Amino acid sequence: MSYQLWYWPNIPGRGEFVRLALEAAEVDYEDMAREHGAEALMEDLGSRRGIRPFAPPYLVHGDLCIGQTAHILAYLADRHDFGAGELEIDLQLIQLQLDVTDIVAEVHAVHHPVSASLYYQDQMDAAYEAAQNFRDHRIPRFLDHFELALEENGGPFMLGDRWTHVDTSLFQLMEGLDYMFPNRMAELDYPRLELVRGAVTDIDGVEAYLASDRRLEFNEDGIFRYYPELDSE
Amino acid sequence: MSYQLWYWPNIPGRGEFVRLALEAAEVDYEDMAREHGAEALMEDLGSRRGIRPFAPPYLVHGDLCIGQTAHILAYLADRHDFGAGELEIDLQLIQLQLDVTDIVAEVHAVHHPVSASLYYQDQMDAAYEAAQNFRDHRIPRFLDHFELALEENGGPFMLGDRWTHVDTSLFQLMEGLDYMFPNRMAELDYPRLELVRGAVTDIDGVEAYLASDRRLEFNEDGIFRYYPELDSE
Repeated sequence: MSYQLWYWPNIPGRGEFVRLALEAAEVDYEDMAREHGAEALMEDLGSRRGIRPFAPPYLVHGDLCIGQTAHILAYLADRHDFGAGELEIDLQLIQLQLDVTDIVAEVHAVHHPVSASLYYQDQMDAAYEAAQNFRDHRIPRFLDHFELALEENGGPFMLGDRWTHVDTSLFQLMEGLDYMFPNRMAELDYPRLELVRGAVTDIDGVEAYLASDRRLEFNEDGIFRYYPELDSE
Repeated sequence: MSYQLWYWPNIPGRGEFVRLALEAAEVDYEDMAREHGAEALMEDLGSRRGIRPFAPPYLVHGDLCIGQTAHILAYLADRHDFGAGELEIDLQLIQLQLDVTDIVAEVHAVHHPVSASLYYQDQMDAAYEAAQNFRDHRIPRFLDHFELALEENGGPFMLGDRWTHVDTSLFQLMEGLDYMFPNRMAELDYPRLELVRGAVTDIDGVEAYLASDRRLEFNEDGIFRYYPELDSE
């Protein structure tokens, strides 16, 4: 039974973290809103009752409907063997995945500090201040954390020589930060994160995916947005 | 082997979601930083290498060290039978717990929209705007979501007649929102959330806990803060 992934069709956003793991594992899935449009997504989500996802992305697999990016990835990792397969280490991977969730939320809050429902243009002053703090303090705090974690097993991947959802997610995080903060990222040096980024692009499924038209470019409707005024000079 | 919970000693914060579940289940734990102070917490976290928690709360259990509130709760639920014990439903509970994580992060961002490392007093204008949006749009959006989920099994708890970590967390969420936004919350009506809140206070372990000096009051160093200017009039 194939997976149905539901996410906004025009941005990589949080959906891309799920896509990358599916593509790396060469698992079939239908990218529902890219086939059927954003209205179909809103209609599908709106028609679900009871315990349902709060927001996209969500994954439908038979009767199961799973929301929350890190949670979807933990489910898929179990089924397709891109976790550790060992409780203690799987717990660490999920924890790291949730740390990725946290920085992704903070990235969005940089350009929407006051409210996600106002335009960026209506909260630029606060965004300017938020970006300065994020660049100076939060990027190093999170990337130091991931860099330190990558020491654990010697790299290139978090577990050493086999990839997991944490690695494909760190790839996407680094890509996004480079897109959003090219000047700031050029000032920083994270050799282990660079190593894992390179190693992820060498996974067969990822290589094929990045060369395909399934891969969406970052853009200014997404989470990682390039507004030059928010980068360092 | 007893659990060691590490969290800031002077605020309920995210640690309280873990405490409430442990207390409801009448599971022994040591509240390490309340016994040994915030410096001991910083020292313990700082001394951990490799894959380690990004921030408190974290739980130490023998060789395991688990960060991220929702993740800690999922681990404890498995071991102490306050999850569902059935894959499909446990997945739903974890998803809901992650939704609680999301609103808790948004609550903190209301009084710290620009940066968690600046004082509230230095970001009051943005906070004022953020609070208005949060009160008008985000509180109903999240509480509608939880209220709808509570319909699934008829209440009072999310699974019907047995409590889980989601219920103790919804209790704490409602308590926190009432503390922070008394006027706004008085305008809203969520009968199923009120029902679960009441039912949680009737759990023996919770009743004893709330009457003890282990229960910390909300205060203006925590996540849920009462600043009258951020509430509706």
